[in-house]
Amino acid sequence: MTPFGERLAALVAERESQVVLGLDPDPQRLWPQTAVTGAGAGAADARAGPTGVAMRAAAAVHAHCRAVIDAAGPACVAVKPQLACFERLGAPGWAALVATVRHAQAAGLLVLADGKRGDIDVSARAYAQALVGSTPTPFGAVDGVGADCFTASPYMGVDTLQALLAVADEAGAGIFVLVRTSNAGARDVEDLPLASGGSVWEHVARIVDRLGAADSPAGLASVGAVVGATAPEHVARMRDLMPRAPFLLPGVGAQGGRVEDLAAAFAPGRAAGLVTASRSIVDAHRGGTGGAGGPAAAARAEAERLRARAWSLG
Amino acid sequence: MTPFGERLAALVAERESQVVLGLDPDPQRLWPQTAVTGAGAGAADARAGPTGVAMRAAAAVHAHCRAVIDAAGPACVAVKPQLACFERLGAPGWAALVATVRHAQAAGLLVLADGKRGDIDVSARAYAQALVGSTPTPFGAVDGVGADCFTASPYMGVDTLQALLAVADEAGAGIFVLVRTSNAGARDVEDLPLASGGSVWEHVARIVDRLGAADSPAGLASVGAVVGATAPEHVARMRDLMPRAPFLLPGVGAQGGRVEDLAAAFAPGRAAGLVTASRSIVDAHRGGTGGAGGPAAAARAEAERLRARAWSLG
Repeated sequence: MTPFGERLAALVAERESQVVLGLDPDPQRLWPQTAVTGAGAGAADARAGPTGVAMRAAAAVHAHCRAVIDAAGPACVAVKPQLACFERLGAPGWAALVATVRHAQAAGLLVLADGKRGDIDVSARAYAQALVGSTPTPFGAVDGVGADCFTASPYMGVDTLQALLAVADEAGAGIFVLVRTSNAGARDVEDLPLASGGSVWEHVARIVDRLGAADSPAGLASVGAVVGATAPEHVARMRDLMPRAPFLLPGVGAQGGRVEDLAAAFAPGRAAGLVTASRSIVDAHRGGTGGAGGPAAAARAEAERLRARAWSLG
Repeated sequence: MTPFGERLAALVAERESQVVLGLDPDPQRLWPQTAVTGAGAGAADARAGPTGVAMRAAAAVHAHCRAVIDAAGPACVAVKPQLACFERLGAPGWAALVATVRHAQAAGLLVLADGKRGDIDVSARAYAQALVGSTPTPFGAVDGVGADCFTASPYMGVDTLQALLAVADEAGAGIFVLVRTSNAGARDVEDLPLASGGSVWEHVARIVDRLGAADSPAGLASVGAVVGATAPEHVARMRDLMPRAPFLLPGVGAQGGRVEDLAAAFAPGRAAGLVTASRSIVDAHRGGTGGAGGPAAAARAEAERLRARAWSLG
């Protein structure tokens, strides 16, 4: 099994893109042609749920995600479905998640399941089975979502991350650990100064570096870090602390981060800095300049613009 | 809508129990009569999934959870399904989760969805919609799992917890924030000493107290804390920092915690200390003394033993 870090580096080079397309579908803000009917979702999804409303909403969400992937995917290296947006549609929503993952992978994209999971050992293994592994049962193995990597929370400590990583390794999958996030609340816990010097997030960064070193001795590590693009002053420090970790950089676009401020992230190589954008691509047609050709054309143009800008920094 | 803290206090008094029954179903360790056939799961669940294997495994898990609830539920005030254990069975697993929640609530139990969620504002709202709220769609509102409360991670800060709480409040639901957990890795981040004095978990405890005070001015707060029972030396300090928060005390039983060590948790009233146990109840028949009447009788006896012991301390 090729380690995740190697797979990621190879695919970034092949696709010449560091863009991760965020999929955070809100049933009230889907692209018009997908929202009305859910056309494009298969019959399998229409059977998946306990209620007709949830089934129709999940079919529309799936159709929307397919259309977004078809439009913007060629400029991207990965998609990042936000699990909450699928879970809120129940079992049909989970089926729509799986179908969206399959569609993205058929288009040659990696899938980063964004769920920020973290729990004690046995539960952490169950989360990893759900996202990147499979679960043995008396009836045979049940495959999980089949993502290539997922986000994880470090609050409960190293043993919880190791449990996630053990299952991920078997699957050739990676994990991205929350280090310093893009929201205002990052100051409340992540930024707290420690008695030993540095901040909580700097301490977590060292944990991420150690986990990655133990897991993959050379090249791009399979243990990455979520590093908010809204605090670019920290990115160089993060790179010092985690020289081989791929950084997932949310907050570009709608949250105010600028890709030009993130050059330190790309220092070890282009695949070490993944730029994620969701609303700025999916909602590009709502802006002043991008709406002429409809949502798909606007999304494609915005994703390509971001791809070219990030690539020029690498 | 009655605030969660009041609902919890009333139900603890009515049922004379502080026991939260953990449901962490492993398809390879289900009670024998449920594992073989999945008998007891309804036709709705058998239609819910993309593959027959996942459907059968989810039906067996659902049958197991129903049997566990029927056996041990009378001695409990709530059940705590571990979301990972359902997610790993895909869409049929999610349907089994919803069916398990309905069964527990029909038996008069509260449901604590254990997912340790946390994310930026818009995603946090989506998680809360998934667990305790509903989601507006063009086709009508889609109900979530319908739990009464859920666990949350504080790593990303106060704004992420406030977003969860806003949706929970509308539903009369509560949240339990990870403060100091029961695993060895708690030392890695939660126990770190801060430059300002105290530890990360003590800082988080103050956040929990403030959120609860703002949310519910009197009585038991609707914002609780997850407080590992394996570190009883911290429980009195936690009570000082969070005088009105209900404590969820995992780690009793299989993880080594003893209910006698937790008296400080119960000081503000019995409902302020919820004792969770999963394997020690569900697997009681595997022990040396409890197996005579089969899994159900052993689980019922162990749950009642734990109930009586905790109640005697209140």
